[in-house]
Amino acid sequence: MDKTAVVLLSGGLDSATTLAVARDEGFACYALSFRYGQRHAVELAAAARVARALGVDEHRVIDLDPGAFAASALTDTTRDVPKDRDEIGTGPVPSTYVPARNTIFLSYALAWAEVLGTGDIFIGVNAADYSGYPDCRPEYIAAFETLANLAVAAAVEGVLRLRIHTPLIHMTKARIIQTGTRLGVDYALTHSCYDPDDAGRACGRCDSCRLRLKGFAEAGLPDPVVYQPDRP
Amino acid sequence: MDKTAVVLLSGGLDSATTLAVARDEGFACYALSFRYGQRHAVELAAAARVARALGVDEHRVIDLDPGAFAASALTDTTRDVPKDRDEIGTGPVPSTYVPARNTIFLSYALAWAEVLGTGDIFIGVNAADYSGYPDCRPEYIAAFETLANLAVAAAVEGVLRLRIHTPLIHMTKARIIQTGTRLGVDYALTHSCYDPDDAGRACGRCDSCRLRLKGFAEAGLPDPVVYQPDRP
Repeated sequence: MDKTAVVLLSGGLDSATTLAVARDEGFACYALSFRYGQRHAVELAAAARVARALGVDEHRVIDLDPGAFAASALTDTTRDVPKDRDEIGTGPVPSTYVPARNTIFLSYALAWAEVLGTGDIFIGVNAADYSGYPDCRPEYIAAFETLANLAVAAAVEGVLRLRIHTPLIHMTKARIIQTGTRLGVDYALTHSCYDPDDAGRACGRCDSCRLRLKGFAEAGLPDPVVYQPDRP
Repeated sequence: MDKTAVVLLSGGLDSATTLAVARDEGFACYALSFRYGQRHAVELAAAARVARALGVDEHRVIDLDPGAFAASALTDTTRDVPKDRDEIGTGPVPSTYVPARNTIFLSYALAWAEVLGTGDIFIGVNAADYSGYPDCRPEYIAAFETLANLAVAAAVEGVLRLRIHTPLIHMTKARIIQTGTRLGVDYALTHSCYDPDDAGRACGRCDSCRLRLKGFAEAGLPDPVVYQPDRP
């Protein structure tokens, strides 16, 4: 393969599907994950499983200083993850928001892309995210692509063109699951829950689990992931 | 003070001057530095001295994973820092370039600004930098400001307006030194050298030292920093 891409890989189903799309498009993939004190660190084990199963040239985990992220339920263990909300991912920005997260993630991806000498970066943002998270919207991604082409020496010199690929951006969760299934993604390897138990089993009740379960239901497919037995 | 700003502070003379300008404009300042395996880690001690001398509300040092930065003489101890070059900061992008550095730095500043509930970020990029570093140019800074206003929930909701302040952007090194001197910056506290000796004394010969010495000479002021005795 002579095409190379950096793929942001959280270990959830969106990023696993994104990696499968990048592989299907013929890219040799360099998968990038982050450890940032999040409570769902079990995601990193999922990211490693997914990277191995789909075949990447390298999987790198960047340690982010957790001190940089405050005021978020995803990193603050004293705050509760919201459960059983009627309206998933709607309304004001949810409390699980991490400040500038995708900007930081994409900045590291940009650094790695430059070192690798490639302009192709994949990120799994999609319609289910961008109702709640501003840094998942198409206009945000376009602005980052513009920035990237001004930031990187090789782009400014005309040697490289940075492109932020968002193959899922207009897909529903059901469509994402159907796409990944067609491309051979084993969703049993992925992890979505914001609040897993000590055995790593998903709660089935946080926004992320509910979006996932709704997606599988609408796709007409069973979710192969293991849930906690007391799930409603 | 009811205005708050995040100020990127490396410990060099540009960022020290930028902090002095932000203070002079009436901002309560939150200074942000980075530890990323650079050989000039002595800069962090300078950053702490400068922060204390100029008076900040908080000085935070973020640990960046050095694995994210490769292929740069500033982080790779096996590569030589260029010395005694005829044309400082001109020509192609120098080997001291760190991939996506300002993008990563500004992303963390953005995260902290959001947590603090402020939109004001200061960075000391200037004309002496942007001949060599693409991520110091005015068009890069403008693109980051656009991105920031799309990335942050409070900006999208219209509560906050992100602004990247670059008070030095059109200044020569001499003008920066004159400005800082007028505002009471003690340049003896700052550090610029890419290749200090074990006592932290500047080499006087790397691009950064030569730009600094040229700036003081043109400003008609003595450089109070301590240089190695064998400097030419």
